[in-house]
Amino acid sequence: MQTVRAPELQIQKWLNTESDISLESLIGKVVVIHTFQMLCPGCVIHALPQTQKIFQFFNGDNVSVFAIHTVFEHHSAMQLDSLQAFLYEFKYTFPVGIDTPDPEGDPIPLTMSAYACRGTPSLILIDKKGNIRSHYFGVVEDMQIGAEIMGLVME
Amino acid sequence: MQTVRAPELQIQKWLNTESDISLESLIGKVVVIHTFQMLCPGCVIHALPQTQKIFQFFNGDNVSVFAIHTVFEHHSAMQLDSLQAFLYEFKYTFPVGIDTPDPEGDPIPLTMSAYACRGTPSLILIDKKGNIRSHYFGVVEDMQIGAEIMGLVME
Amino acid sequence: MQTVRAPELQIQKWLNTESDISLESLIGKVVVIHTFQMLCPGCVIHALPQTQKIFQFFNGDNVSVFAIHTVFEHHSAMQLDSLQAFLYEFKYTFPVGIDTPDPEGDPIPLTMSAYACRGTPSLILIDKKGNIRSHYFGVVEDMQIGAEIMGLVME
Amino acid sequence: MQTVRAPELQIQKWLNTESDISLESLIGKVVVIHTFQMLCPGCVIHALPQTQKIFQFFNGDNVSVFAIHTVFEHHSAMQLDSLQAFLYEFKYTFPVGIDTPDPEGDPIPLTMSAYACRGTPSLILIDKKGNIRSHYFGVVEDMQIGAEIMGLVME
Repeated sequence: MQTVRAPELQIQKWLNTESDISLESLIGKVVVIHTFQMLCPGCVIHALPQTQKIFQFFNGDNVSVFAIHTVFEHHSAMQLDSLQAFLYEFKYTFPVGIDTPDPEGDPIPLTMSAYACRGTPSLILIDKKGNIRSHYFGVVEDMQIGAEIMGLVME
Repeated sequence: MQTVRAPELQIQKWLNTESDISLESLIGKVVVIHTFQMLCPGCVIHALPQTQKIFQFFNGDNVSVFAIHTVFEHHSAMQLDSLQAFLYEFKYTFPVGIDTPDPEGDPIPLTMSAYACRGTPSLILIDKKGNIRSHYFGVVEDMQIGAEIMGLVME
Repeated sequence: MQTVRAPELQIQKWLNTESDISLESLIGKVVVIHTFQMLCPGCVIHALPQTQKIFQFFNGDNVSVFAIHTVFEHHSAMQLDSLQAFLYEFKYTFPVGIDTPDPEGDPIPLTMSAYACRGTPSLILIDKKGNIRSHYFGVVEDMQIGAEIMGLVME
Repeated sequence: MQTVRAPELQIQKWLNTESDISLESLIGKVVVIHTFQMLCPGCVIHALPQTQKIFQFFNGDNVSVFAIHTVFEHHSAMQLDSLQAFLYEFKYTFPVGIDTPDPEGDPIPLTMSAYACRGTPSLILIDKKGNIRSHYFGVVEDMQIGAEIMGLVME
């Protein structure tokens, strides 16, 4: 199996974390990234409650769990003010990075584009060496996520 | 039992309807109002899917079903752009009135204040004569809502 | 609309009630009957929790709510001992009538046959005059059940 | 950490499998056992659908997944006929072993007693060497089960 190096994140601003997060600094840990849009129903109903659960189960010395707000439609509807109120009201405590808008005006932001995400929610699992090992679009079973993360931790 | 006349709505702007809605014009019909905020978890997870269900079951010649966006916190986070994208993405088709901000700066908007709602979601049932017959804060059972609406229809 | 007189029940044994129930004695009340088999997944997961909810909302002076155990397959698997343990463990408190087996050996018991139920669960609503007004096979929405029962109560 | 050797199973009869299962024959594989009673609500609603999911995700060369029917109350209500109809109607395909009644009349059957299960459902995870590594009573999260099984597989 050939693995792909995870491209570095291009984040405009981080929320719910004291210091910025880079993949380079996380080499040696398993990294779990959930991309979302705050007005995407599948994200609100399924993916983000699951992100919180992943964060509570796994975030720690061996695993880093966070989300990236990859807005690619309705941009004016999901600005910083709205995202902050959303995270506060839904009591989400995992770090959230706001993806960087394309400077040339493409609606797809830079990190989403670098990872070729097909939409939101997307779940990306990166191993300790910094390689992408799973990349899902849509809903993934809790049991499978638990197994995959632990599989990467045990490598 | 003493009933209270339902105060007239004070709506800044209507969405999902071709013409504005007034309680006066609905005398003779049962009126079902769900108040919400687009970033209130209880509204997003429970109340608004239920509003859509009430709308599909009951909206018609005898019953008028709609929602009112009564923003009383995080005002800048829930402006028109965001609300429109929210309704579009969640595929809600019932009429939505945006409550009128208090001109004197109180965070509680005018209709919410006139109805003394304790928060969101609130469910208000008005009989054919224009009197408030039920006023709930929080989650209400589908079965109870169905029974109450039909009870008012049959009067 | 032409209505059909509800055939009298043919019950072998009643559980969860001090006295036997007949439709004749319930003239003047709305009657709600849920038929089930204790090993039918749709009954266990959906219909019987709903029966309990209907019972708690409506059973009283105007409405009589109960279930009928209409076993038409796996007869030896759902005998009295098993049914009693099932009702006890699931904490169901509504009356349950055990349908009478066909004396000529047809697997369909007598009440189920008289009502021409297509399977389990079936929901039957009978008006105050003793006429069948609704007859559903499968899952029915709580909101619709609430509305229909109240509609019959208000007649 | 001290681990405890998993006592050998004492099964009266196996269902859903062509050949009997012994722990001795499974040395080298991770073993997942869900104990249940067919009339235990927590088993019917939560644990057994989860067993089916575990079976579909994990049963294979490295993991063996099955259930044990450990009846300790209402014995006459949950005999072979009823259990077979239950498994058939709920479409469960994982192997099920029927625990052996105590020959001295204790209501707790032999395997349940040997494992000191506190009730149903219980989830027992056994590592490749045949040692008990987890032993839960009640509901366990899918994500945690996925992680624990994979953790044992990767040892």
